[in-house]
Amino acid sequence: MDLTKENIAEWFQKLQDDICNQLEESDGNGSFHEDLWNRNEGGGGRTRTFTKGAIIEKGGVNFSAVHGPTPPNILKALNLDEANFFATGVSIVLHPINPRVPIIHMNVRYFEMTNGVWWFGGGIDLTPHYIDDVDASHFHKELQQVCDKHNPSYYSDFKKWADDYFYLKHREETRGVGGIFFDRLATQDGFDKISRWQFVQDVGKAFAPIYAHLMKKNHGLTYGARELEWQRVRRGRYVEFNLVWDKGTKFGLDTGGRTESILMSLPPQANWHYNLHPDPLSEEGQTQEKLQKGINWIDGATV
Amino acid sequence: MDLTKENIAEWFQKLQDDICNQLEESDGNGSFHEDLWNRNEGGGGRTRTFTKGAIIEKGGVNFSAVHGPTPPNILKALNLDEANFFATGVSIVLHPINPRVPIIHMNVRYFEMTNGVWWFGGGIDLTPHYIDDVDASHFHKELQQVCDKHNPSYYSDFKKWADDYFYLKHREETRGVGGIFFDRLATQDGFDKISRWQFVQDVGKAFAPIYAHLMKKNHGLTYGARELEWQRVRRGRYVEFNLVWDKGTKFGLDTGGRTESILMSLPPQANWHYNLHPDPLSEEGQTQEKLQKGINWIDGATV
Repeated sequence: MDLTKENIAEWFQKLQDDICNQLEESDGNGSFHEDLWNRNEGGGGRTRTFTKGAIIEKGGVNFSAVHGPTPPNILKALNLDEANFFATGVSIVLHPINPRVPIIHMNVRYFEMTNGVWWFGGGIDLTPHYIDDVDASHFHKELQQVCDKHNPSYYSDFKKWADDYFYLKHREETRGVGGIFFDRLATQDGFDKISRWQFVQDVGKAFAPIYAHLMKKNHGLTYGARELEWQRVRRGRYVEFNLVWDKGTKFGLDTGGRTESILMSLPPQANWHYNLHPDPLSEEGQTQEKLQKGINWIDGATV
Repeated sequence: MDLTKENIAEWFQKLQDDICNQLEESDGNGSFHEDLWNRNEGGGGRTRTFTKGAIIEKGGVNFSAVHGPTPPNILKALNLDEANFFATGVSIVLHPINPRVPIIHMNVRYFEMTNGVWWFGGGIDLTPHYIDDVDASHFHKELQQVCDKHNPSYYSDFKKWADDYFYLKHREETRGVGGIFFDRLATQDGFDKISRWQFVQDVGKAFAPIYAHLMKKNHGLTYGARELEWQRVRRGRYVEFNLVWDKGTKFGLDTGGRTESILMSLPPQANWHYNLHPDPLSEEGQTQEKLQKGINWIDGATV
């Protein structure tokens, strides 16, 4: 197989189509609005945002393939004088209406430079407003299966990476129940490019069925003003993570990316209260206590 | 006058008291809740958050005086190996209920190190949800008066500094109508410490009357769902500025400051819509068009 950057970008574009179709079907009412954009320095993207959803309130499934001179901070990190880069990927964040349906995020990406350096990155992580241990276990089992197909250490390595990455240091809490995260996957440890690519493809393909299951299972659960208020507090933490800690967001905003595509990840509404600490015995407090690194969600979330 | 760090901290603490009293009087209903906190490495603060306001929905007036080993990034910027620091100041952000009343921010601060380096910093800036040219002009005139009392170049220098500082690069828009901002004011250009301190004191004292005027003038204006929605959109931009660009917030969160005191600046509620562009002829669009650097608010806000 001849794996070129064009092949990869084409496959990602097809993945975006597939995921959009599957999400429209799972939601049953909403549809995607598409904006095509071009980047001054080269390349562009297809931003697709969800509107009028029955289950999904706000979100997007974005594809981009951009190229041009490599940003200075990457050159510096790699100790390079100059090189052109090419980057392509699919990024998703979905904020559901019902607080019993979790927020989800997925990203798969490929990066290469004209000097021959290349890598894959990505991940999927889940942010329940209310943690359901059964859902969290199911979610992690699905990711484990995807990982195990490719390498026995992938799940444990990338699960730990997600715990460390999706972490609000200033709150000493994780964003949600984690998932998997990986970056700069290349030929380390004897992997070849095709095997890395097949793994990334499987992560991309796993997304829609995983979220379809969570939508279907939870969107009919009842909720009221209390659950909506807590949802908005948790969404506030999502905003804090994305704007303070998320390297992709920061990189995009710093380097003149398309702001509306980058910030499609922000929720429709977020609330902040001063010094809110839910009663540890309440359902909100129980969720708060589980926002920790290192939980074995598959075997049971006792903390 | 013997101007010690203890004198300065004591004066700032008194300023916090005065401002809280004046704000309670202007609001007529709400009151401040106080939390005292200690910093592990030395010092602490008095966080005061406003609750049950008739005019102010959420906000805080914080005092702190902290000390300990100087953070590595400051040492590096000053090319120093080591020194202990002392920092004290008052920080305020107020989010009003009525979208016709602007958000306001004020900060005055003093920093010194055991090697003899010291400086003052601070500023006041205004973020109207709907820009009222008369209010913006009045606000800037008040600041100009405070500045002119001390130096003929202060207002124009610090007004420009505020335009540059309170700027959302990723939106290419200012946070609001600006105000004044200054940092590292020491003995440059022949100033002495007492004259800098007197200026900072006057900035601190100007805050409460300036905001009392804006509260009184605007809190009775009518508004509906449309104005509230726009208020929440503008509050979203406030969140973006504080979490992405504000150096004080970033520094505090990075160095383990008290998160709830730092993030008291966040609004009670913020909304995000994908790719919202108000009609340029609407009142919202008119405000959007004026979120630019370099406007001479005093003589008229024609852009």
